[in-house]
Amino acid sequence: MQEFDVIARFFSHQNSQQNASSAGVLLDKGDDCALLQPSQGKQLAISTDTLVADVHFFADMSAHSIAHRALASNLSDLAAMGAKPKWFSLALTLPSVDETWLAEFSRGLFELADLHGIYLTGGDTTKGPLAISITVIGEVNGNTALKRNNAKPDDLIAVTNQLGDAAAALQFLPAKNISQLPLAQQNIIAAYQYPKPQLDAGQALLGIANSALDISDGLLADLQHICAASQLSAQISLDKLPLSDDLIAQFGQQQAIRYAATGGDDYQLCFTFAKDKLCQLTEIMQQQGIHWTVIGSMKQSEQSRHQVKCTLDEQPFEFDRAGYQHFSEDH
Amino acid sequence: MQEFDVIARFFSHQNSQQNASSAGVLLDKGDDCALLQPSQGKQLAISTDTLVADVHFFADMSAHSIAHRALASNLSDLAAMGAKPKWFSLALTLPSVDETWLAEFSRGLFELADLHGIYLTGGDTTKGPLAISITVIGEVNGNTALKRNNAKPDDLIAVTNQLGDAAAALQFLPAKNISQLPLAQQNIIAAYQYPKPQLDAGQALLGIANSALDISDGLLADLQHICAASQLSAQISLDKLPLSDDLIAQFGQQQAIRYAATGGDDYQLCFTFAKDKLCQLTEIMQQQGIHWTVIGSMKQSEQSRHQVKCTLDEQPFEFDRAGYQHFSEDH
Repeated sequence: MQEFDVIARFFSHQNSQQNASSAGVLLDKGDDCALLQPSQGKQLAISTDTLVADVHFFADMSAHSIAHRALASNLSDLAAMGAKPKWFSLALTLPSVDETWLAEFSRGLFELADLHGIYLTGGDTTKGPLAISITVIGEVNGNTALKRNNAKPDDLIAVTNQLGDAAAALQFLPAKNISQLPLAQQNIIAAYQYPKPQLDAGQALLGIANSALDISDGLLADLQHICAASQLSAQISLDKLPLSDDLIAQFGQQQAIRYAATGGDDYQLCFTFAKDKLCQLTEIMQQQGIHWTVIGSMKQSEQSRHQVKCTLDEQPFEFDRAGYQHFSEDH
Repeated sequence: MQEFDVIARFFSHQNSQQNASSAGVLLDKGDDCALLQPSQGKQLAISTDTLVADVHFFADMSAHSIAHRALASNLSDLAAMGAKPKWFSLALTLPSVDETWLAEFSRGLFELADLHGIYLTGGDTTKGPLAISITVIGEVNGNTALKRNNAKPDDLIAVTNQLGDAAAALQFLPAKNISQLPLAQQNIIAAYQYPKPQLDAGQALLGIANSALDISDGLLADLQHICAASQLSAQISLDKLPLSDDLIAQFGQQQAIRYAATGGDDYQLCFTFAKDKLCQLTEIMQQQGIHWTVIGSMKQSEQSRHQVKCTLDEQPFEFDRAGYQHFSEDH
């Protein structure tokens, strides 16, 4: 066990942009619990995600990107609620103590944590097969959080940035010397290794969007959750899916659309909003420099079947099966 | 992945003693985050513990007791701060979906959760080697939490209930048919499988104890943390350690003391308090029906060496090495 005490050293970094006190942390490492001061009048948004080696990431990926992905996927859940990140705890299970690996992991973790002003309050390090479980806590004003169950008929459906790159990256991974691959492939791999949680977008949507979630399992699979929770259907135009030039160049338009619709791991937001908010939203997103695209609209469901329907060139289009599961079996 | 959706069924139990709303849970399963309403004027106490199969528990133990131990060890951290349990999240990693196992795990988890009124807000279930990571959140009035760094010279040192049984249980584990073992051995095994987090004791100590922690790694190792944090030394009489009759009957007085001093996993509280609070504390503990024993006192350290010193029959006594590490190598 003593060997594992060494590890504490890698996680005692004081966030550069804030000290414990200004982060509402009254007591952190070294006691039975951390003590936190929630802000008055706020609600807490809390989420837990576990990443297991060779299930959710390649164990031989850089520790820097493993840490980034682990925290980013959790921050993405806060983004999807419109919450402001506050605190996180880290449960890290390691087969052995590799100081070089830990230093890289720690650097990846705190770079992203500092960027979004989230404070590591503690956690637990144990010996075992490599796995990372993170619990994030954010704050949001009372009754403003973006939920899944509040989409309305005729809401427009939109997504942030571009989709499909992260899923396509699995074609190039695992890779030994990423820096020697063509730049387009490096860019696509970066989407997988370094997803950017859309926290600014989430907060910009507060008071405007009727529903939101983050796309972790694939657009169609995740949009289905909004349909089910809101008891509505969705109609999307696959032609409108935002695709990167790199993705199209590497895989062609048709396969790029497939990745964008059914591949996961992008951690972009999908949200719905009333048509009459279009101008307001356009203005806010432009101010914030956030790219986004309207891809369809919500509909009343027929015969209580709440589903996502796609068109391509204005013709109905069906994938054989949607989402992560399909994708993971294909490749 | 779909198979893992089945699992959600085992964790959708609504706590019998409270509904979501009265637990301050505004939104739980089925969205990106749970939304929680913290009580006004309270601070949050938060802790994370991970239990890995065959590192922290025997994988072939009953799923009921695995769940109990996992939640109990986390609740014990709240107890040690004097915090009232509120919410927890569960990250469960499973090699496969075994519905019988899951049903037992779920039963063990919610029995203990209901007993202490703590609400499962969500979590994550993933495929991988068996491991359980739990994050608990409790509430405590501002500036009343029991810390480790506030012990004072001449404080009396006390512990709750009895020590040593859980460590001794490892002599009898793993065991196929526990119910056929002698009753004394069954009792000792129960201390390991079903530790009782001392939440009532922790809350009773608020405003009385100067410092507290829970004994997870062994009395000597854990008391050392109070010494280091408070910059003091501790003097304890091994003769006074509270031992169960079963432990003495099975192992003899000397070995029983050894388990009580150096063995972990009991999850009793160790705390210090000013002598003039002795009457008040005696009365409160009696009202609450909590057994406890004074085992020594805090001292100024000599030459800045903050350490735990033991006596046996009023003679100085030293174990060769203290705490969990020693124990885990012995057995």
